[in-house]
Amino acid sequence: MNAYVYGYGPEGKERLIVVDLGVTFPDMDSTPGVDLIMADLSWLEENVDRIEAIFITHAHEDHIGALPHWWPRLRKPVYARKFTAKIGTMKLEEAGHPSDTVTVVEPRPQVIEAGPFKVQFVPLSHSIPESSALVIDTPAGRIVHTGDFKLDGNPVVGEPFDPLLWHEIAHEGQGVKVLVCDSTNVFSPQPGRSEATLAEPLRDFIAAQKGMVVATTFASNVARLKTLAEAGRAAGRSICLLGRAMKKMVAAAEETGVLTGMPGTIPAEAAVEVPRDNLLLLVTGSQGERRAATAQLSRGKYLGLEMKEGDTFLFSSRVIPGNERGVIRIINNFSEMGVDVVDDQGGLYHVSGHANRPDLEAVHDLLRPKILIPMHGEHRHLRKHAKIGTAKGIASEVATNGTMVDLTGDRPKVVEYIETGRSYLDGSALIGAMDGVVRDRIRMALNGLVLITVIIDEDEQPLGEPWVELMGLPSRGRTGADLTQQIEEELTDFLERASVKMIASDDKLDEGMRRIARQVAMEEIGKKPEVVVVVSRLVAD
Amino acid sequence: MNAYVYGYGPEGKERLIVVDLGVTFPDMDSTPGVDLIMADLSWLEENVDRIEAIFITHAHEDHIGALPHWWPRLRKPVYARKFTAKIGTMKLEEAGHPSDTVTVVEPRPQVIEAGPFKVQFVPLSHSIPESSALVIDTPAGRIVHTGDFKLDGNPVVGEPFDPLLWHEIAHEGQGVKVLVCDSTNVFSPQPGRSEATLAEPLRDFIAAQKGMVVATTFASNVARLKTLAEAGRAAGRSICLLGRAMKKMVAAAEETGVLTGMPGTIPAEAAVEVPRDNLLLLVTGSQGERRAATAQLSRGKYLGLEMKEGDTFLFSSRVIPGNERGVIRIINNFSEMGVDVVDDQGGLYHVSGHANRPDLEAVHDLLRPKILIPMHGEHRHLRKHAKIGTAKGIASEVATNGTMVDLTGDRPKVVEYIETGRSYLDGSALIGAMDGVVRDRIRMALNGLVLITVIIDEDEQPLGEPWVELMGLPSRGRTGADLTQQIEEELTDFLERASVKMIASDDKLDEGMRRIARQVAMEEIGKKPEVVVVVSRLVAD
Repeated sequence: MNAYVYGYGPEGKERLIVVDLGVTFPDMDSTPGVDLIMADLSWLEENVDRIEAIFITHAHEDHIGALPHWWPRLRKPVYARKFTAKIGTMKLEEAGHPSDTVTVVEPRPQVIEAGPFKVQFVPLSHSIPESSALVIDTPAGRIVHTGDFKLDGNPVVGEPFDPLLWHEIAHEGQGVKVLVCDSTNVFSPQPGRSEATLAEPLRDFIAAQKGMVVATTFASNVARLKTLAEAGRAAGRSICLLGRAMKKMVAAAEETGVLTGMPGTIPAEAAVEVPRDNLLLLVTGSQGERRAATAQLSRGKYLGLEMKEGDTFLFSSRVIPGNERGVIRIINNFSEMGVDVVDDQGGLYHVSGHANRPDLEAVHDLLRPKILIPMHGEHRHLRKHAKIGTAKGIASEVATNGTMVDLTGDRPKVVEYIETGRSYLDGSALIGAMDGVVRDRIRMALNGLVLITVIIDEDEQPLGEPWVELMGLPSRGRTGADLTQQIEEELTDFLERASVKMIASDDKLDEGMRRIARQVAMEEIGKKPEVVVVVSRLVAD
Repeated sequence: MNAYVYGYGPEGKERLIVVDLGVTFPDMDSTPGVDLIMADLSWLEENVDRIEAIFITHAHEDHIGALPHWWPRLRKPVYARKFTAKIGTMKLEEAGHPSDTVTVVEPRPQVIEAGPFKVQFVPLSHSIPESSALVIDTPAGRIVHTGDFKLDGNPVVGEPFDPLLWHEIAHEGQGVKVLVCDSTNVFSPQPGRSEATLAEPLRDFIAAQKGMVVATTFASNVARLKTLAEAGRAAGRSICLLGRAMKKMVAAAEETGVLTGMPGTIPAEAAVEVPRDNLLLLVTGSQGERRAATAQLSRGKYLGLEMKEGDTFLFSSRVIPGNERGVIRIINNFSEMGVDVVDDQGGLYHVSGHANRPDLEAVHDLLRPKILIPMHGEHRHLRKHAKIGTAKGIASEVATNGTMVDLTGDRPKVVEYIETGRSYLDGSALIGAMDGVVRDRIRMALNGLVLITVIIDEDEQPLGEPWVELMGLPSRGRTGADLTQQIEEELTDFLERASVKMIASDDKLDEGMRRIARQVAMEEIGKKPEVVVVVSRLVAD
């Protein structure tokens, strides 16, 4: 959920630009029921008058996904290259915002002026078209913000890495003062491999298969989709794209002209009629997402298409840590169908979109920054990257979420910690991570819920007996008696013995009944549930 | 959650033995709030009179963990070797069952007679002491049930693999009819490595560290603990065990005589006083378990001990798929403390306890069974193992949960599917996976809960207004108005307009109010919550 802010000007009055507005994805462990997780940008909202513009480096969700949710609160100019702008515009339109919100920019030499900042987009490769570094010139010096990148001399789609261009950027004026740099693959010791190296292995692989072949990769990796489609076509197979996100990405890439020469595809309705050994499906869901095409196919028929014994499923992808369970479930489903599953095979059928350690070092050496701020990655990645920088004599600093770093001196200097956090998109509501909403959901899921209602009449006497409902709790425990009834009986006893003063007090009544419900549950089922008590009081007319 | 049953006798009246009674662990995705997951053994309960005995191959939770929960329902003799019996007895005692429940047996040549079965325990190595295969002789032939195993000529603790013994087993009488065989590492193409190969790398590694060293592995891997402790001692460090499970395992292993020569350890209170560069902590929690010592240390002080910049944390273990998130969280916490984290380094500091593919093939070749039933592993592992067996001319069959296979012929023949499933230990209650308890918890966690109470008087008129409480839901949405109030107002409207007939019907009232609450929530927060409606009716005296 990337969101970077650069500022220039007198302290506390710096003019600001924002780079990327991303999301991350919820999980059942910590964020059940949540739709999206974003950085809490309250500080930006409070300082909205100081913001000049928003720049989006590329169209991956963790860089652009928060745009439709936070743009309405910031309402500042948004700049991106054409494919990225197309995706951003689609997202904003879906959320009901104007279709002219995002300004399309050309790469360097075009310069966008935003207050004291002069910003250029410079092409770098990644696993999505048009990923760009930003060269940000300020009166205090030049910053290179890499975004997500790899060094690829032949990325299949988009511009190859251009060392001469970067040499120029490194040597103009005072050179590069600050490198803010991707760290995702800092633990990968080998130089990264080009997207183009996959063409031959994938062609050979698909040519060797007998039944239907189904391959998955990230929907936005249109270079990979092209390579896969060409490999399928070379084997005489018809190509069918499955999954809304994938069709959207390919369409956007073709419409903006970044993808050309993609073999033609057929719709699912037509694919059903093609002999299975002449068919290649390219499908969404490489991370095991439950509703994506891969998961659907692993559960049975999807849009009339079905995998069978003798078919092959290829993961032209790697599992992002945390997604293993979903992916393994799918592989076992396919195993039960008799489908052979093939994964990246140590790089034969997949390459990463991020620069590995030697590539990162090449960038350090090429740009010779005075300061290195590692970004993109977990703390362990940032720390490792900073250590590498420091070892080379580059002043390096790990800046965690909320850290404000002064970059004007020779060394980075942490000057402030902004209060940050997470905001959740929950249904259509934007809530704070600390609002307690998700905490209550987790508690109900872990502990179950006892609901108690009781009516107190005009004379402060219980009217009838308390009523108990259980949600997410076993109906019987140790003694085998009905738990609902047991709690009701204990509550009735309690009310009979309760003083008028106790019954007159909502708080005391609530506390007393809650305690009893938890006690009975603990004895019977060894669990202390959440309890909600509703006391209804009749008032004399 | 292993549980295997062998039967011999006339159809439907076979005498039965049970091999292993294991658990698996819950997760928030599918089993929130659950304590343990076990096979649903209702079929065994229904056929309890036919059961002769229960055999436990080794003391890992997935083989022994269900013993204290299911034994009371079966109450049959339990057989295990001494260390396994010790662990089983501790579990049964904790649950209040007799301490003489488990009978300690010696390995082959001792034979346990159980109805038509003659059973021998035969030592094999694994990542816990005394893991044993069972050689099960029946009038229809010999079965070898491997349990979890590897082939280790020098396992540090316990008996080395003895090929002569196994040669003998393979050539006695009619030889081996059926091999029921571990499949966990069938996808590992290299021969497995001995536990003993870790001694030197671990000694060198610990000797090279400056600050405190903390290492984690499975609590029950006492061979590894011994190797680590010896490496620490060689580097002049005091050894301290942290974590209840680890202390219990080491004590049980020493008490039963399976572990000897373990360097002496000091308690945490003493460790606090030892200079950190002379200290090695061996701790629980290699899989990221939130309450284990590793996680505690990653969050700060634990029993007075604390990790600092310059210290080193070693995972002498591998992450079991599905546990990545918890482990990564811990590594990043350590990174923030400045602690260097080292993992298995591709096998330098960890070896697996399971036989790899070449070792499995060696076992096939050594035992030359007529039939192979792969076990232990996911479907993809079983399928792969069966393919390997089939390719060698061994009649192989993947038997999924509940499959009853006739092993008397030349080929395995599936004859019946027993209805099986999962049972959950939830607090102290044993519930069925299909009881709906966990489903309700998941729904509350995903959707939040609206609670509606309304009182209807003797004249079928609402008394006062309906009362609404929200649990796990945002308090405000699209319009910014209070969601509770909005729902209450709509419900009041509804009740005012409702016919007497509607109000007189609990079902109709429930349905109508539920629909309104969900509608209002959908409009305001884009979510359809769970709804509980409690209608209290006053009755005329």
